[in-house]
Amino acid sequence: MAHGASLSGFPEWLPEERVVEQRVIDTLREVFGLNGFIGIETRAVEQGSSLLKKGETSKEIYLLSRLQDVAGDVDVPVENRIGLHFDLTVPLSRYVVENSGRLVFPFKRWQIQKVWRGERPQEGRFREFVQADIDVVGNGDLPSHYETELPLVMVSALERLRPFGLPKATVHANNRRLSEGYYRALGLTDVEGVLREIDKLDKIGADEVARLLQQTCGASQAQARACLDLADLTAPDGAGLRAGFDALCQRHGIAPDGEAHEMAVEGLDALAAVVDGAARIRPGSVIADLRIARGLDYYTGSVYETFLEGAEGLGSICSGGRYDNLATQGNRRYPGVGLSIGLSRLVSYMLHTAGAHASRVSPAVVLVAVWSESGRAASNAIADDLRSRGIAADVSPTAAKLGRQIRYADRLGIPYVWFPADATQDGGGHDEVRDIVSGTQAPADVTSWRPDTVVARQTVVTGDAPATDGVNG
Amino acid sequence: MAHGASLSGFPEWLPEERVVEQRVIDTLREVFGLNGFIGIETRAVEQGSSLLKKGETSKEIYLLSRLQDVAGDVDVPVENRIGLHFDLTVPLSRYVVENSGRLVFPFKRWQIQKVWRGERPQEGRFREFVQADIDVVGNGDLPSHYETELPLVMVSALERLRPFGLPKATVHANNRRLSEGYYRALGLTDVEGVLREIDKLDKIGADEVARLLQQTCGASQAQARACLDLADLTAPDGAGLRAGFDALCQRHGIAPDGEAHEMAVEGLDALAAVVDGAARIRPGSVIADLRIARGLDYYTGSVYETFLEGAEGLGSICSGGRYDNLATQGNRRYPGVGLSIGLSRLVSYMLHTAGAHASRVSPAVVLVAVWSESGRAASNAIADDLRSRGIAADVSPTAAKLGRQIRYADRLGIPYVWFPADATQDGGGHDEVRDIVSGTQAPADVTSWRPDTVVARQTVVTGDAPATDGVNG
Repeated sequence: MAHGASLSGFPEWLPEERVVEQRVIDTLREVFGLNGFIGIETRAVEQGSSLLKKGETSKEIYLLSRLQDVAGDVDVPVENRIGLHFDLTVPLSRYVVENSGRLVFPFKRWQIQKVWRGERPQEGRFREFVQADIDVVGNGDLPSHYETELPLVMVSALERLRPFGLPKATVHANNRRLSEGYYRALGLTDVEGVLREIDKLDKIGADEVARLLQQTCGASQAQARACLDLADLTAPDGAGLRAGFDALCQRHGIAPDGEAHEMAVEGLDALAAVVDGAARIRPGSVIADLRIARGLDYYTGSVYETFLEGAEGLGSICSGGRYDNLATQGNRRYPGVGLSIGLSRLVSYMLHTAGAHASRVSPAVVLVAVWSESGRAASNAIADDLRSRGIAADVSPTAAKLGRQIRYADRLGIPYVWFPADATQDGGGHDEVRDIVSGTQAPADVTSWRPDTVVARQTVVTGDAPATDGVNG
Repeated sequence: MAHGASLSGFPEWLPEERVVEQRVIDTLREVFGLNGFIGIETRAVEQGSSLLKKGETSKEIYLLSRLQDVAGDVDVPVENRIGLHFDLTVPLSRYVVENSGRLVFPFKRWQIQKVWRGERPQEGRFREFVQADIDVVGNGDLPSHYETELPLVMVSALERLRPFGLPKATVHANNRRLSEGYYRALGLTDVEGVLREIDKLDKIGADEVARLLQQTCGASQAQARACLDLADLTAPDGAGLRAGFDALCQRHGIAPDGEAHEMAVEGLDALAAVVDGAARIRPGSVIADLRIARGLDYYTGSVYETFLEGAEGLGSICSGGRYDNLATQGNRRYPGVGLSIGLSRLVSYMLHTAGAHASRVSPAVVLVAVWSESGRAASNAIADDLRSRGIAADVSPTAAKLGRQIRYADRLGIPYVWFPADATQDGGGHDEVRDIVSGTQAPADVTSWRPDTVVARQTVVTGDAPATDGVNG
């Protein structure tokens, strides 16, 4: 992160760090497009009434006031004010309803934008960050196969980020109906309550969660134990999931009949379809993990969290699920399934833990030297010729000593310096190009010269910093 | 603009319109990169104290309040609050100062981001829009050749947007010292006042401006006339500019001596260098236009406005100038020169006046059909194979009748439909691909098939809408 950033929670990257973020964004765009997702961008603000609808984050809103209206706005109900969006789901549902007549359904869209959380400043929490979302929204109904396919799109996108230092990602999936049916079959009725306590497992441990389940959700010791056992169940495939679930039911005396058990089996079938369907395309990319409770109070079907191998401490880097009432318009329902990557946190990990960095800070491949200010026009013409052939070129800011011009290129990581002909010191009357890493220098023709194709690319690399300074400076 | 957009001044594009905006942004990025500009992105918010510094727009700020702090924030001085940036210049100057030790100067940066203006809702005014800026910032000093080169970068960028329906752009340049020196040589001292009135020329006409110059700036009738004469001076080159200026001085009795005349000539020389330097690279792209007064109260050297041929009513679509105190840090000055494109207004023009539209709404080139839900995995595998070769592919949402699947592709503008082998209706046991515009259908191999290279590209076109619906729907 840029040093001296004066606002906690509002990350800002140095130019060489921004190269990494930009490449991540471009890579995601490419993968989403390859999968037929349509890119949209929504306005940054929503009506307060929309922002207040969604439960979880409704308290973390930045409201806007025009400078002139600050005093008067205090009396305006929040519903009638505007605020910054805190996710890309609220905007999507509004956008879909507003434009339903002009969209093709199922509407597959990607969206990469900043979101804002009106939180108190806290170490390690971003108040402004970039999210990268994909969702499929149906008009009336939405086929369940998207619940298998969307996490796979995210897995393939995250796979493409491995060269930027990202470890292997695994999607952990659960299903609302499985958990709810199981709790109900146990005789528990406060499903939201149980989910809320189970969600605390990683933070406070099993014993404390067992205590809370009894204290706040009316669970017996045995019921609490049964809930914890469910949370311990993970399986790489449908068969393992079924076997584990059946064993649990037997152990905790849940008979294979009744409405609640049926609900659980429906959820189980759906989850098995997701895991097995994913395994056919990318084995090991999606596993069943019944500890996943976050979002189950909101989502109505599949729910996903994504963890990075060896970086589990980061928490879930890509979450989502299926929501049968993403948007509504009169009697019309728009069910959706989607996932969201917390992109800024991912980029921060790549930069600061994985050592990702730009191969150079400037996009220019070549710096055209300037022997004297009167010769600047000639240098500019050379640069323009190169640009017209797609070769990014900068021109020396001043007609300083050669060493200083080379140093300028070096600090920006620009690999070549072009010496215009008429003043080339060793004569010959032709332009020359110096590779400033190897120091080799050779005649060059502006109409045909090409940089080495590997050197030409401004890329993201991990591991050792490149030899030039100015990149990690 | 998306119909039914519920917030006036917050434009939002339909998917097929967003394709145009995205291509415009990508094109600008490419041109800026080719010219060696470094991309950065700054946070959306700035301290109130920073936002209040710059004169012109300081009253059009959106301040932020956390939902919980709304009541208390009323008593917090604006300086200590945070607000959304209203341009990309205030953030740049802060960024440069905060990171000065980690940047290479002169720092050439591009930045394309949303900005917000806390205005009252007004027809045709955006309160949220995208700006595309380039600036060069020096540390201590900044060579004047950038005043010639930066408008040329913008001209070449705008030139690249011609295929999207943009008319030819011409930069109109002026210089603060020329105008100020001339007014002072006439004996006028309220330079800011004169500039303010001259800026109203297009709105209220010469007679009214003459009246105001006399009424508010202490000008005599002759002095007012002399100011209007200067504003009438345009020239395509330095020689014409000099001749016109000398004639004006003679006509209005300004002797070629004295400090004020010297200042004017300094400005004249600088402006002539800009116009002649630009003409050497792109003849006719930059002209001297002494009517340009906006921003002269802020900029300290060159000032630019850019007009589109036949769309002058749009006003300036790209403005900027040189500012010797873009940022300061103690005794250290950071002079800058830059230009800013009002991108949203430009995209709006392309869409609604020039008829630019996406060649198709979906990025997918091919839709893989699904004969039955049990065969979906096979269709998914075909799509994945195509994607691995860089061919964007979608898979039919349902195993509906063939006609309905083709119609889905058609509505999204997807030009090819892939029929997996095992159910191809005319037998043969091989996959087939149908070109849904021509209706031709031919066997295809998933490992080698390629779409027509022209059809494959999702592009922006102008003029007649493409044959598929769903694009301008």
